[in-house]
Amino acid sequence: MATESASGEPDAPEAYEKLVEHVRRANGVNDAAGVLQWDQQVMMPEGGTPARSRQLSTLSALEHELMTDDDLAGWLDDLDGADLAAERAAVVREVRREHERAVRVPTALVQRISETSSEALSAWEEAKAEDDWASFAPYLEELVDLKRRYAEHIDPERDAYAVLFEDYEPCLPLERAEEILEELKAALVPMIDEIRGSDVELATDAFAGEFDADVQEALSREALSLLGYDWEHGRLDVSSHPFTSGNQFDARVTTRFDESDPLGALTATVHEFGHATYQLGLPEEAYGTPLGEARDLSVHESQSRLWENHVGRSRAWWELFLPRFVERFPDVDASPEEAYEAANQVYEDNLIRVEADELTYHLHIVVRFEVERALVSGELDVSEVPEVWNDKYEEYLGIRPETDAEGCLQDIHWSHGSFGYFPTYSLGSAMAAQLFEALQADVPDVYDRVREGEFDAVHDWLGEQVHRHGKRYETNELVRRATGEEFAADAFVSYVRGKYGELYDLEASV
Amino acid sequence: MATESASGEPDAPEAYEKLVEHVRRANGVNDAAGVLQWDQQVMMPEGGTPARSRQLSTLSALEHELMTDDDLAGWLDDLDGADLAAERAAVVREVRREHERAVRVPTALVQRISETSSEALSAWEEAKAEDDWASFAPYLEELVDLKRRYAEHIDPERDAYAVLFEDYEPCLPLERAEEILEELKAALVPMIDEIRGSDVELATDAFAGEFDADVQEALSREALSLLGYDWEHGRLDVSSHPFTSGNQFDARVTTRFDESDPLGALTATVHEFGHATYQLGLPEEAYGTPLGEARDLSVHESQSRLWENHVGRSRAWWELFLPRFVERFPDVDASPEEAYEAANQVYEDNLIRVEADELTYHLHIVVRFEVERALVSGELDVSEVPEVWNDKYEEYLGIRPETDAEGCLQDIHWSHGSFGYFPTYSLGSAMAAQLFEALQADVPDVYDRVREGEFDAVHDWLGEQVHRHGKRYETNELVRRATGEEFAADAFVSYVRGKYGELYDLEASV
Repeated sequence: MATESASGEPDAPEAYEKLVEHVRRANGVNDAAGVLQWDQQVMMPEGGTPARSRQLSTLSALEHELMTDDDLAGWLDDLDGADLAAERAAVVREVRREHERAVRVPTALVQRISETSSEALSAWEEAKAEDDWASFAPYLEELVDLKRRYAEHIDPERDAYAVLFEDYEPCLPLERAEEILEELKAALVPMIDEIRGSDVELATDAFAGEFDADVQEALSREALSLLGYDWEHGRLDVSSHPFTSGNQFDARVTTRFDESDPLGALTATVHEFGHATYQLGLPEEAYGTPLGEARDLSVHESQSRLWENHVGRSRAWWELFLPRFVERFPDVDASPEEAYEAANQVYEDNLIRVEADELTYHLHIVVRFEVERALVSGELDVSEVPEVWNDKYEEYLGIRPETDAEGCLQDIHWSHGSFGYFPTYSLGSAMAAQLFEALQADVPDVYDRVREGEFDAVHDWLGEQVHRHGKRYETNELVRRATGEEFAADAFVSYVRGKYGELYDLEASV
Repeated sequence: MATESASGEPDAPEAYEKLVEHVRRANGVNDAAGVLQWDQQVMMPEGGTPARSRQLSTLSALEHELMTDDDLAGWLDDLDGADLAAERAAVVREVRREHERAVRVPTALVQRISETSSEALSAWEEAKAEDDWASFAPYLEELVDLKRRYAEHIDPERDAYAVLFEDYEPCLPLERAEEILEELKAALVPMIDEIRGSDVELATDAFAGEFDADVQEALSREALSLLGYDWEHGRLDVSSHPFTSGNQFDARVTTRFDESDPLGALTATVHEFGHATYQLGLPEEAYGTPLGEARDLSVHESQSRLWENHVGRSRAWWELFLPRFVERFPDVDASPEEAYEAANQVYEDNLIRVEADELTYHLHIVVRFEVERALVSGELDVSEVPEVWNDKYEEYLGIRPETDAEGCLQDIHWSHGSFGYFPTYSLGSAMAAQLFEALQADVPDVYDRVREGEFDAVHDWLGEQVHRHGKRYETNELVRRATGEEFAADAFVSYVRGKYGELYDLEASV
C-alpha cells in the first residue's frame, strides 16, 4: 500500500502485495454490484428485472470465485504467522475471515441467492404496493431455504441464524449481541409502560397538515447541505426504502416522502446522511481494501443513528432547523420546544419501524428478530408470517396492522435474503449513544455548536475515531478505542432515561 | 438454448452448452459495465470518477479473461467443424471471432484502456464545459497510444485504423466501407454545392424563439410515447451526449435540451428511440448470447437513422406531430409544410454533427474520419487537432468553429477511446435508406400510417427483418435478406436526390 511504503515501513512481502491486488479486484466487482443494486431500486424500469438478476448473479459468482481462489488461499498460507505491520495484519485478518467463510459455500448457491433476491426485490415492491403477501411469499420461501442451506455449508453444527448474523456483524458473537438487546428491552419496556400511563401531553401535532413532496425534497436537500453533505460525492433520490449506497468517492442517499408526515422523510434523510458520511470518511487511498471499507453493520448503524437521534432529534437541532422548516412550510406554527416534543413523541399507534421513536423502535426490531429466527429454524412457515407478525405487534406495541403493506411487507430486507440483519439496528443505536457520550466528553459544547449550524466538531470526532480506520479494528476494539469502554448498552440506557425522563416527567426510579 | 431444443432440434453438443453458459457470464459482466457507464454519464456525482474507473477496469479485465479463457478455447476447438444447426453455428462463429481477437490483447492493456477512458470521460465533460482542449489532450494522447498498441497486438502487419474499425463493424471490411463513404461523398458534395447556390428559400425560421427545457422534455416524452416507446422497459434522461444503453429488458435513452433549438432535442430523442427499439426487439430468451445481441454498429445506426430521418423528418410526421408541438409551444406559428422545410433545411452554418441535416451530416463524419485516421497513424499530434479540425470544417463545410467546445470537443467518442466508430454513422444512414426502401415496397402506405400515428407496420417490419435475428447473420447478409440487395449506397443516393431535389428545386441531372 502506497501510504505504508511512504511512511517508511519495510516493503510488504510479495504475497501481501498480490493479495491486496486480488482483493481490490474482488472489491471492484462488489462495488459494481452495489451500483447495479442502487440503480435497480432507484432508476431501473420495472421490466428490467430479468436482465438485472442475471447481471447481479454473474457478479456475485465472480466475486465469490475471486474470494475462494486457490492463489488467494496460497498467499494467505504464505502470510500465516508472517511479521506484518499492524495495518497489513488487519488486512490479512479481514481477507482471511472472508475467504474462509466463502470457500465453504458453492458458487452456484451464491449465484442462485443473488438471482432469487434480485427477482424478489421486484416482487416485494409490487407486493407492498398491492398489499399482497401471497405474491411475495414464494420468493421469501425460496430465500429462507437458500439461506438455510448457505448457513449449513458454512457450519452445519451451529445455529443457522447465528451463522447468518455473522454476514452483517462478523466481529461480535450473537450471544453478546443478544445480551445487549436484552438489556435494551429490560430498560425500555417499563419506560414505555410508564410513558403510556403518563399524564404529560407532548405537542404532538406540531407537524400536522399536508406537506407537498417537492417542497419536502427541497427541505431534505437543505438539511443535507446544512449538515455538510458533500454533493460533489453524493446525490439524493427517492426509493421505496431509504438507503445509502457507495464508497469514499460516491456515497448516495435516498429518502421517501409522505405528504402527511414531513418528519418521516427528514428523519430518514438525516439517518442516511450518517451512513453516507461514514462511507465518505473512509480513506481514499485504501479504496478497494479492508482499510478502505466500513466496519460492518452495527458500526455503520451507529453513524446513522448518531446523526438521526443525537443530532436530528435534539433541542439544539430544532432551534437551528425549525426556522428553515417554517420558511418552506409557513403554515407550521410551532416553537422549537414544540417541534422537539413532536420529533420525540413516543408513539402509541405507529406501525412503521423507520418512522418509530427512539424507544419503541427496538420493539419493532424484536418482532423482526423473533419472526426471522423462527423462519430460519423452520418453526414458522412463510404463510404464517402475517398473522404472527400482527400478533406480536399487538403484544409488544399494543397495535395491530390492518394491512401487510404496513405490516410484514414494510421492510425491504427479506427481499434481499438478509436474515440476521435487523439486530444490527438496535446494536447500532446502543453504539451511537456510547460514541456520542464520548464525543460530548471531548466536545462539551457540542449542542451549542449544533444550534449554530456548526457540525465540524462532530465530523472531525467521528472521522478521527471511526471513519478513517476502515476495518483496521474489530467492532469492540473500535468502540473501546473511541470511548475508553467495552461496547455495552449502558450509555444508551442512561441517555434515554435522561431524555425521556425529562420529556415525560418520569419517576427518577426508571 | 431452450428454444432450439423445444423446436425439436437435436440436443446440442456438451461443448456448445458449456460455451453458451460461459458466454452468458461474459455478457453479464459486459452488461453490468454498461449500467455503470450509463450511470457515469447520467447520474454519477463528479467526484465518483476514481472508484468508477477502478470498477470499470475490473469488469473489463474480467470480461477479457472470460473471453480468452482456456476452457472456452477448448470448447471452440471441440466445435470446430461440428455439424451444428444454423443458429448454433452462428453463435459459435460470433464467439470464435471475439475470442480470437481477445486472445491477442493482454488483459493489463484492456484494463488500462478502460481505466483511462473512464477518467477521460470526466476530463472531456469538464474540458467541453470550459472550452479547454489542453486539459483533455493528455487523456486523448494516452488513449491514442493505448489503442495503437491494442491494434498492434491484434495484427502488427495491418493498418491500425482498419483493425480498430473492426471493433465497431467486424463484418464489413474497411475497404468496402470506404467505397460506400466515397459514393456518398461523390453524390453529396455537388448536391450541397447546388443547394447553396439555389434561390429557393425554405421556411427555416419555423422554430425560432425560446423553448423552455422542461416543456421540451415533456414533448420528447410525448414523441416517445407516440412512436411506441415501452416505458416499462425504458426511461428518458439528460446527458451531455445523447445515447442509448441497455438490452432487450431495459433500453434507456438520453437526450439534451438547448432552449434555442427545440428540433435538436427532438431529433436526438427520435434517433435514440430507434436504437432503443432495436435493443428491445432482440429475442428475450437469447439474452446473454450473440443471438440476443444487436448486430454491431452500422446496423444499430441504421435503426436510429431510419426513425430519425425516414420517419422523424418526413412530411407525414410533421403533419402528425406539429399540432402536438404547437399545443406545448403556442407561439409557434407554422404550417406542417413549413415545419417539414425547417426540419430538412440544409445548414450553411451548423457546426454540430448531431444537429446536422441529412446531407452535410456526412461531411461532419468525413472530418472526424480523417482526423482520427491521422491521429492513429501518428501523422497528426493531439495538440494539432483543434487547428486541423477547424481547417477541415472551413474546407468541407465552409464554416470555422470559434471554440473547441463546438469544434473538436463536441463529441464524446474519443473520450471512450473509440477510434474507428464514426464511419459506422454514415454506413448506418446508407443502410437506413436501403431498409426503408424495402419497407416501403412491402408497406406502400407507410406514410399514410405515420400521418395517423400508426407505427406498428414499421415496428413489425423492422422487428421481423432486423431485430429478432440478433447476430444470426453478418451485416451484408442481414441487409440482403431484408432488402434483396447487397448493402450499397444506391438507395441513400436516390432517396436524398428525390427529397432534396424537390425541396430545393434542383436540376434533374443531380
